[in-house]
Amino acid sequence: MERVYNFAPGPSMLPVPALEKAAKEMLSYNNSGMSVMEMSHRSKVYMDIQKAAENLLRELMAVPENYKVLFLQGGASLQFAMVPMNLYKNGKADYMKTGQFATKAIEEGQRFIDVKVVASSEDKVFSYIPEVDRSMFTPDADYFHITTNNTIFGTRFTELPDTGNVPLVGDMSSNILSQVYDVNKFGLIYAGAQKNMGPAGLCVVIVREDLVREPMDKTPLMLQYRTHAKEDSLYNTPPSFSVYMAMNVFQWLKDQGGVAAIQKVNEAKAKILYDFLDESGLFKGTAQKKDRSIMNVTFVTGSKELDDEFVKSAAAAGFVTLAGHRSVGGMRASIYNAMPVEGIEKLVGFMKEFEAKKA
Amino acid sequence: MERVYNFAPGPSMLPVPALEKAAKEMLSYNNSGMSVMEMSHRSKVYMDIQKAAENLLRELMAVPENYKVLFLQGGASLQFAMVPMNLYKNGKADYMKTGQFATKAIEEGQRFIDVKVVASSEDKVFSYIPEVDRSMFTPDADYFHITTNNTIFGTRFTELPDTGNVPLVGDMSSNILSQVYDVNKFGLIYAGAQKNMGPAGLCVVIVREDLVREPMDKTPLMLQYRTHAKEDSLYNTPPSFSVYMAMNVFQWLKDQGGVAAIQKVNEAKAKILYDFLDESGLFKGTAQKKDRSIMNVTFVTGSKELDDEFVKSAAAAGFVTLAGHRSVGGMRASIYNAMPVEGIEKLVGFMKEFEAKKA
Repeated sequence: MERVYNFAPGPSMLPVPALEKAAKEMLSYNNSGMSVMEMSHRSKVYMDIQKAAENLLRELMAVPENYKVLFLQGGASLQFAMVPMNLYKNGKADYMKTGQFATKAIEEGQRFIDVKVVASSEDKVFSYIPEVDRSMFTPDADYFHITTNNTIFGTRFTELPDTGNVPLVGDMSSNILSQVYDVNKFGLIYAGAQKNMGPAGLCVVIVREDLVREPMDKTPLMLQYRTHAKEDSLYNTPPSFSVYMAMNVFQWLKDQGGVAAIQKVNEAKAKILYDFLDESGLFKGTAQKKDRSIMNVTFVTGSKELDDEFVKSAAAAGFVTLAGHRSVGGMRASIYNAMPVEGIEKLVGFMKEFEAKKA
Repeated sequence: MERVYNFAPGPSMLPVPALEKAAKEMLSYNNSGMSVMEMSHRSKVYMDIQKAAENLLRELMAVPENYKVLFLQGGASLQFAMVPMNLYKNGKADYMKTGQFATKAIEEGQRFIDVKVVASSEDKVFSYIPEVDRSMFTPDADYFHITTNNTIFGTRFTELPDTGNVPLVGDMSSNILSQVYDVNKFGLIYAGAQKNMGPAGLCVVIVREDLVREPMDKTPLMLQYRTHAKEDSLYNTPPSFSVYMAMNVFQWLKDQGGVAAIQKVNEAKAKILYDFLDESGLFKGTAQKKDRSIMNVTFVTGSKELDDEFVKSAAAAGFVTLAGHRSVGGMRASIYNAMPVEGIEKLVGFMKEFEAKKA
């Protein structure tokens, strides 16, 4: 059974050692005589796994002591509601509209709080990150929301907005653990696991303790951060197997040298692709150079037919899921932590051949 | 690596063939060159898995055409809020208080709707199911909520209350697929997967189409049944690996002959334990005979010290997680579908030896 190079935007490639460990331990984890998915979540053997996952994540991201790490369910989509429901105080929040998930966060946020869209890049199909400065921000906003990496459009914030005392909230779903971030700059970070952490169905929230407060009226118990913070994410049954897989992935990342080390690899991987795109006569990157993502590389040929032909022939050659998001078309290579350098090198080789054939 | 007999209340034992299949396919599912947890949820290969899981569940439970099957996250605990938020119309609902999860459902329900507790068995530590009749019910309630099986106290409804036109809502977390139910008798069924279906982190909702309606104001998009019903549970990334595991478990159950066949096995398994409890001089069942669960068998010796000694020595002999819930103590043997008959026979053998030693 040969493995493919999987450029899916998420769920996406996971490190082979993490998968191999899971396969090996499927019928009996650590001589317990049972699979992790069969364990009571109140048993010591499982609680040790969850604690190890949390400790590894804290170490990898240098999460300060005064931040809680929560393992939740519902994905980033549920955080679009949980953030305003839990951080609501003055009743207003600033958002930057830099892509489709940012837009969804805004639309869901508006259900609960007075949203100001500080800046948008919708005018140019979200191909850039707008310049902003403090004078544009709401000084007494309850929080300021950004999407640190825009999966569909291949952009990222290379600099974080300076929001002063207003807590910065980052949807980091598609680039958590891919580059070094100073967690202190955020009030809250959230991320679905299915790109750089593990299987879908787990959502990580890192929240400064003072923001774990009384939520809006009629906030379901399960949607209150304090419910989960008080019980170390064991208020109800957690998605235990996904937490275990995340632990395996975190351990793998630590073995690679941690986030600073993988950032260098990620930058090198992205450079290979972008350098080729910048010199190619056929393929062209779609994101503004200064804002290019190192996780999602978006490009086009300029012809829908050629794009389709490329995606199809690449798949046949073992480079799968290269089609762009259904809303924008073209191509997108998602190159998360688990994508090896040789996957990119071989893809560029294939692109060169394709281009030569079309010349 | 020897497997243990795992009597955990959930997460709990899963069928070995389902686990073996998962181990074997961990690095490449069906020659796709990737793990199920690496697949885009929009890919055909994954969507076929989710469709297969749904079709198997529909077949196993004979789910009528006019019911939607939803694969959600957040467990039964989130349904405690989603049910009132989505079924709210006249603003009142009836609940039966038959255990701890029923109590939690009531407490969370009260946040959103006017709750009437029709009957409670709290007076006798939830050791029975109270008798009720239609005259006690609210005729224009939006729904009538029961917990079909009470995990902690070892009771179940042997007869469903006849609620007429008021939709019956069943929390079936701990006995779904263990016995034949007529889905038509329910307006809505929900169940966390982690007992009879698969890993924690997946929650199945079976809902009659006319109940998928406009929810209460300020219901988060992710908490609206219609969001997921419209998109076949693919509005956002589903807990895809858990859905795949559920598919494997459903297939195993079908291979056993389906729900009617496993019900016979389950009744026989429970009978072995209850027959012994009824003749034992040391061990004594705690649930009223007429309401005994066939999934969770609760018992005591009458002495806390002996209970502790029994739980400890049983674990040493390979019968693990037999301690009762921390709120009630004593013992509980959870014997879901995946627990083989020989697990019960050997446990009873061990109990007999223990009793002889103490005589």
